[in-house]
Amino acid sequence: MARNNASGSRERIAEAALSTFAERGYHATTTRDIASAAHMSPAALYLHHSSKEDLLYSLSLSGHRATVAILTEAISSNDGPAPQLRRMVHDFVLDHAQNHVGARVVNYELGALSPEHRAEIDVLRRRIDALFRDVIRRGVDADVFRVDDVHLAATAVLSLGLDVARWYRPGGRHSPDALGAAYAQLALRLVGAAA
Amino acid sequence: MARNNASGSRERIAEAALSTFAERGYHATTTRDIASAAHMSPAALYLHHSSKEDLLYSLSLSGHRATVAILTEAISSNDGPAPQLRRMVHDFVLDHAQNHVGARVVNYELGALSPEHRAEIDVLRRRIDALFRDVIRRGVDADVFRVDDVHLAATAVLSLGLDVARWYRPGGRHSPDALGAAYAQLALRLVGAAA
Repeated sequence: MARNNASGSRERIAEAALSTFAERGYHATTTRDIASAAHMSPAALYLHHSSKEDLLYSLSLSGHRATVAILTEAISSNDGPAPQLRRMVHDFVLDHAQNHVGARVVNYELGALSPEHRAEIDVLRRRIDALFRDVIRRGVDADVFRVDDVHLAATAVLSLGLDVARWYRPGGRHSPDALGAAYAQLALRLVGAAA
Repeated sequence: MARNNASGSRERIAEAALSTFAERGYHATTTRDIASAAHMSPAALYLHHSSKEDLLYSLSLSGHRATVAILTEAISSNDGPAPQLRRMVHDFVLDHAQNHVGARVVNYELGALSPEHRAEIDVLRRRIDALFRDVIRRGVDADVFRVDDVHLAATAVLSLGLDVARWYRPGGRHSPDALGAAYAQLALRLVGAAA
């Protein structure tokens, strides 16, 4: 029960931090704002997080870990580079549309992390890059993708998905799922997949 | 001479605002910071701009106008949708790589504009969207592009270029020009251009 309360508080704080950062920007937000949005005292908040930066780091860590998990699951549950890339892009775009508020904070406030925290997040970001690069390279080796520059193609595919968090708003022309499917198709074109 | 000084001051302020916003974020920057970076007094700065938001608006306006000019020039100096799209993407990416600091401020601090200023900038952003959509639609009509959803393809092409400002740093694997050429090729693949 005590444990449930503690994890409930942490979740409430995380949600409050995310919405406050998204609304006002990280720099203009104070820990007092976050505590107030989470309906708790600043002192109670400090039991869980030592600083505003620590909260951003915690959001960033769970966001990037979730992305790594989504991508590795997409790879392990499909056979061959084309079905794998299709699922990776679909699920990545779906997640960035559904969690567009969080993804904007996580991707556009990286500069506010401490050097140690930034280094830790960068390890996860390089892992995400590598997952896209590897599947594209395997596709080129298997002669199912045609790409001049694997590194750049991976960056481009990632850009397509990431930028969804910048522009996506619910109630638009596409559901997150339809957007994922359409972008998966575009990514396969990008890598010159045999039709 | 007086005029030169005035336009020199405005330029110095614009540069100082851009670098200060880029470094600390818009919200954490004060007009005093900007005046200090421009080597002038806050009072002198207020002769040119009534507020920090007015400075952001002015940067945003010139950035978006420059993009519209780049794209219309790319269209008018080429014949046919494929050469036009190739040049549009090349020049858009080149500009977003060369001016990556400014492009980040302009694209990621839109939320800080006043409603009136935001509406004015949104007119330019819709014009940019429309320029990409129109060239893709003309390509589909002329049977040189194959696209299921013109609107989405235009968003994807724009995402590729915009996201360059997020990740590009000088001294990387590609010059801005080489990046522009490679991305132009990827954009043509995205729209299913006949090889």
